[in-house]
Amino acid sequence: MTDIGETTHPLDEATRIDWMEPGRGHGATHPAYGNMVGPFGGTTMAVLLRSVLDHPERRGVPFALTVNYCKAIQDGPFELRARLARDGRSVQHWVMELAQNGAVAATATAVTGSERETFSHQTVAAPKAPAFETVAPLSSNVRVAWLAAYDMRFFEGSGVFEAPEDSPPGSARTAMWLADKPARPLDFVSLAAMSDAFIVRLFHLRGRPALAGTVSITTYFYATQAELAAQGTRPLIATADAKVFRHGFHDQTGELWGADGALLATTTQTVWYKE
Amino acid sequence: MTDIGETTHPLDEATRIDWMEPGRGHGATHPAYGNMVGPFGGTTMAVLLRSVLDHPERRGVPFALTVNYCKAIQDGPFELRARLARDGRSVQHWVMELAQNGAVAATATAVTGSERETFSHQTVAAPKAPAFETVAPLSSNVRVAWLAAYDMRFFEGSGVFEAPEDSPPGSARTAMWLADKPARPLDFVSLAAMSDAFIVRLFHLRGRPALAGTVSITTYFYATQAELAAQGTRPLIATADAKVFRHGFHDQTGELWGADGALLATTTQTVWYKE
Repeated sequence: MTDIGETTHPLDEATRIDWMEPGRGHGATHPAYGNMVGPFGGTTMAVLLRSVLDHPERRGVPFALTVNYCKAIQDGPFELRARLARDGRSVQHWVMELAQNGAVAATATAVTGSERETFSHQTVAAPKAPAFETVAPLSSNVRVAWLAAYDMRFFEGSGVFEAPEDSPPGSARTAMWLADKPARPLDFVSLAAMSDAFIVRLFHLRGRPALAGTVSITTYFYATQAELAAQGTRPLIATADAKVFRHGFHDQTGELWGADGALLATTTQTVWYKE
Repeated sequence: MTDIGETTHPLDEATRIDWMEPGRGHGATHPAYGNMVGPFGGTTMAVLLRSVLDHPERRGVPFALTVNYCKAIQDGPFELRARLARDGRSVQHWVMELAQNGAVAATATAVTGSERETFSHQTVAAPKAPAFETVAPLSSNVRVAWLAAYDMRFFEGSGVFEAPEDSPPGSARTAMWLADKPARPLDFVSLAAMSDAFIVRLFHLRGRPALAGTVSITTYFYATQAELAAQGTRPLIATADAKVFRHGFHDQTGELWGADGALLATTTQTVWYKE
């Protein structure tokens, strides 16, 4: 829970769970994270991760999170279930579900485990970025509430989609500075939400909006709690790209880099699109 | 089911399910796909996908498959469950589980849906590869049965791990020709298995084997049944890489390319390693 002066951060409100018993609780969508229909997927991811982090049997930090968006979530309350499917020596496996009025709206799995010191290596360096202060904040023509919940500053690609219908495909790749707005110290909940804070690649590739939505997303975490605390409220560098658009689905990959050049999370999703 | 002359292909034997009722059945590990301990993860993925494909309520083709390996599977029989969590208009969401003696050994989710013709694009081309016939088949010093179930021909990196302990990290990237051995026409079951047919990146990066294993894997499919049929028994091009190794986990990404240059599947996994 993060207090901004006297108030609670909207992300903490959007991911608050009222527990009825361990593994069974209630949450609700939040207007600050509204999407075209229902809530921003990142808050759905974040609240599903929180359903595990809140669980009394959870040990350690998250390493993997997969969320499948099964149906459009309506604005309002929802039910959450989190079940420890396997409690291993080094890792725990979780199965979660988000439902509205008894109908499953999202299924999810997660892996948690103890922090360990091991061999460490990155094969890639963070992208070279102009200073945060020198990049203009996003002013998108996509009118959804959740974009205003982030400070996004594109330095490769843009969030403006005005290409004519007959434009040839451009680049699907973008790079941006990314931070919560208002500022909030980084933790796994916000990192999970940020891993879905990419506009779908189809918009970028074609330069115009389309009917599309994430169907399944997977994020892997490679950070300790101490590393997230060291990041604090500083913006991340967030890159995303796509390789293939076919038969109504496209891939999307993303990386979230800390201020010190560490790759904190990698993410991938498959996106449904209409045509 | 694929017949090789008078016999059934080992992959079909390894993924055969005896159904007790819709969504509840039995399978068994197969010696042709043995790993250091228990079975090759790719056959576990493939049999979990087959548990959905076999289901009488399944429509269309798979688009996404996530498998979490919860505990070491023992050689022998196992139980499978597949449940349709959400039957949407355009996609179906599945939740699956593999258990042995009542203990969950793998959890999984899948998305299936109808084949549709839409806008189509690839931002990347298949890697340039020397002709299959000119590349030497793998002769690895890793002694596991499943490697012999594939015809692997590395043209970037190798499957031989003999670097001294104090060697600096090398490249995690490999590229190879990949086919079932004996040959088998490509379908979603074999494509799922092949998406885990990469030796863990830590071996490649450090040039030597280590105690390591996949914890969670996600594969997205971008092919129709007709495209897989057109591929037939021709080898795929399979590339894999990794970006980050930290705190006992590393990422791994892979691509499976058809003979005509189409990206048929993308895959990512997080791998646990001891030290």
